[in-house]
Amino acid sequence: MARFWHVFTVRNLLVVSLAINASFILRLGYETIDIKREQLLTGKRAQGEALPTQRAHLPVSTTSSPSSTPFPGSDRDRVINLDHGDPTMYERFWQQVGEKATIVIPGWQSMSYFSDIGNLCWFLEPEFARQVLRLHKIVGNAVTEDRHIVVGTGSTQLFQAVLYALAPPDAEEPVSVVSAAPYYSSYPAITESLKSGLYRWEGDALSFSKEGQFIELVTSPNNPDGYVRGSVLNKSGGVLVHDFAYYWPQYTPITYPADYDIMLFTVSKTTGHAGMRIGWALVKDREIAKRMVKYIELNSIGVSKDSQLRAAKVFEVVSDSCESSSNTTESLFEFAYHLMMERWQNLRAAVKHSGIFSLPEFSPGFCMFKGRLFEPQPAFAWLKCEEPIEDCERFLRSNKILTRSGRHFGVGLQYVRISLIDRDDNIDLFVERLSNIRKDNLCQHMGE
Amino acid sequence: MARFWHVFTVRNLLVVSLAINASFILRLGYETIDIKREQLLTGKRAQGEALPTQRAHLPVSTTSSPSSTPFPGSDRDRVINLDHGDPTMYERFWQQVGEKATIVIPGWQSMSYFSDIGNLCWFLEPEFARQVLRLHKIVGNAVTEDRHIVVGTGSTQLFQAVLYALAPPDAEEPVSVVSAAPYYSSYPAITESLKSGLYRWEGDALSFSKEGQFIELVTSPNNPDGYVRGSVLNKSGGVLVHDFAYYWPQYTPITYPADYDIMLFTVSKTTGHAGMRIGWALVKDREIAKRMVKYIELNSIGVSKDSQLRAAKVFEVVSDSCESSSNTTESLFEFAYHLMMERWQNLRAAVKHSGIFSLPEFSPGFCMFKGRLFEPQPAFAWLKCEEPIEDCERFLRSNKILTRSGRHFGVGLQYVRISLIDRDDNIDLFVERLSNIRKDNLCQHMGE
Repeated sequence: MARFWHVFTVRNLLVVSLAINASFILRLGYETIDIKREQLLTGKRAQGEALPTQRAHLPVSTTSSPSSTPFPGSDRDRVINLDHGDPTMYERFWQQVGEKATIVIPGWQSMSYFSDIGNLCWFLEPEFARQVLRLHKIVGNAVTEDRHIVVGTGSTQLFQAVLYALAPPDAEEPVSVVSAAPYYSSYPAITESLKSGLYRWEGDALSFSKEGQFIELVTSPNNPDGYVRGSVLNKSGGVLVHDFAYYWPQYTPITYPADYDIMLFTVSKTTGHAGMRIGWALVKDREIAKRMVKYIELNSIGVSKDSQLRAAKVFEVVSDSCESSSNTTESLFEFAYHLMMERWQNLRAAVKHSGIFSLPEFSPGFCMFKGRLFEPQPAFAWLKCEEPIEDCERFLRSNKILTRSGRHFGVGLQYVRISLIDRDDNIDLFVERLSNIRKDNLCQHMGE
Repeated sequence: MARFWHVFTVRNLLVVSLAINASFILRLGYETIDIKREQLLTGKRAQGEALPTQRAHLPVSTTSSPSSTPFPGSDRDRVINLDHGDPTMYERFWQQVGEKATIVIPGWQSMSYFSDIGNLCWFLEPEFARQVLRLHKIVGNAVTEDRHIVVGTGSTQLFQAVLYALAPPDAEEPVSVVSAAPYYSSYPAITESLKSGLYRWEGDALSFSKEGQFIELVTSPNNPDGYVRGSVLNKSGGVLVHDFAYYWPQYTPITYPADYDIMLFTVSKTTGHAGMRIGWALVKDREIAKRMVKYIELNSIGVSKDSQLRAAKVFEVVSDSCESSSNTTESLFEFAYHLMMERWQNLRAAVKHSGIFSLPEFSPGFCMFKGRLFEPQPAFAWLKCEEPIEDCERFLRSNKILTRSGRHFGVGLQYVRISLIDRDDNIDLFVERLSNIRKDNLCQHMGE
């Protein structure tokens, strides 16, 4: 913490002050978006990250009586959308960074389909590859030696590239795809979307007993519940795919450099740049990497060069700030670590105050990157509603908090996933609203 | 033509001269790439736009005897790769344009998944949408009223989004996908790649006789042969998808504003920015557009914002130059029109001189955009080798010209597709090499 507060010299305070002004102006914009969002949700619904279901309209009755609206001030009717993992909490960091992270692309640059014709992944920008290797080396979260880097339009496209690469093209039966529940809600949606004859979603790995080849998806830390995970299937015929989207030191201690055959990462959860749509895979086997490249060639003839160049630039800034001995530049990981810590503290306090919710408990681990022990503080809260609430998503929605129901993750309705990487005002309001829902006033919150 | 040469004032000559210098420096770089490319092709092979096959190694014998190498100078051993439609001929134009087309993106911009939450296509950048509408209005090649714009990671992703959107999810049989041969080589490769239960490639529309629902792909002007096309199937149960990648005034006369239900476009063939991976669809039906958006949500959670912003910028420059009354700014369409005209004139002369090749013949059409009559001058040459050459692709490959064989387009080996939108030096060398292959020296060119 001492190091964190060192940054506030007079000059920096000025910068922060200007950033706050900018932030206020920007928030005026956000408010407009939120109003629009609400209009949408009562009429059309917002669309976003792999939405598994059509969202039902908000019941008008929740705002009809003043006594049933315990949220004071102008925010009381605002719908808080924490369904998607939109990493907008990072905007403030990049505003503070300023010009250093700006990218300039002249009109004549990066026009060709090809980025690096000598590379197996011919659409991979060499500078992006360099910065990926550098960042992994600094953070120590993955072994990069003897690996092929495959860039994708987010790790979502890479996940599909992996399925294509691993599925035997001439097999009689589709290969089974499994993951231990609760699993990332997009896995089944994506795997089933095209009714592919190459692969088939078989659900929870823990109850999987089929014979034949399978792919096990291991997300660690897990989306939605934040636990560090390993493979659960101990039988032959399987290939493991490790999704390390959240294996970064703002969310979880970096206890070892991951060293698996196929590892997926994404810029969106590393630096917050979801709009870039850039992910990367570290792949040991050359033939698998080649087939992944073939998928991306067929699916989109490569990956945006502009976003790869921009990702390289923001990675460079992140790595520079980690390596810098001067305390005038705070690192992204410090910024996000402290923000996540604060949010988890506030959330746990609200949950305790409320008495009708519960959260996962984590053991601390020693982070090699930070050189200290800390507890995981995941990007999502995996919230459980206690009795008498049966449908947690529905209950929170009636309180104008949009979350993703546990049923999309292969478990029950008593769970929801809540994004904790949204903008400050949304998270603050959410925590405040949650802490006001208490056992003794539950009936009015249930609209009864 | 008069308007074209007006631009060369003294000031402009200086700019052109500087651009040429820059071009020379850049070409030094290209030479290195070409050397690398050749090394690859004799060892590993180059990968690119939806390569349908593993390319065989170049026979070493073609360069072993000086008498069998009729190409003078240092370029005689150079492999010319015109297999892909890499639109690098446009680089020179954008170098001339200079700073006007430069994009600057600060680190804190476009971080969210969302671009326009009120839009059906929630990941569509509003500025890109505006510039798309403006460009269509100026060029007059498509009706945009009462259409939804869906942005994609190239028109390749949009093509797959269309298949997903049109295939009934609960049908017993996959919907048939057809296109009149010669058809774009990527259509079968993409459609078949995942063995989808939703849709199935059924080949040449002209020989399609199955009952049931079908999707007919109409590419106009056609890739590979450049002809203007309409639907060939006149029966019920079908939906038409129009691929208008090449319906721009540098390639073909704009005879009417296209007015179909589903129309696909791509930045790569409009301005030459293939590396952006941006395409767009104009879609009449709201439900179809929504399902296309759902596919892109599942496939890549949206489309790179950085590339959308950059595409908006280059479209703005193109539209500005079209609208400008001053002749000091040459328009992209003028530049590319004259370059394509020159290339087709040279190619036709070389083919005539050679006596063993033939090319499609086109009728002139009145272009509403240019206000004059001209013949199509397509992005690809659809070359036919006459007897005794049986395998045109193989024959040209033995002369170190890489093209795409007719068999990938649903027709015979006597045809090849050749990109005419590559860099000047490649096209010049290709035309020179072609004109040196003559009936009377054919044996030495066939390695006999």
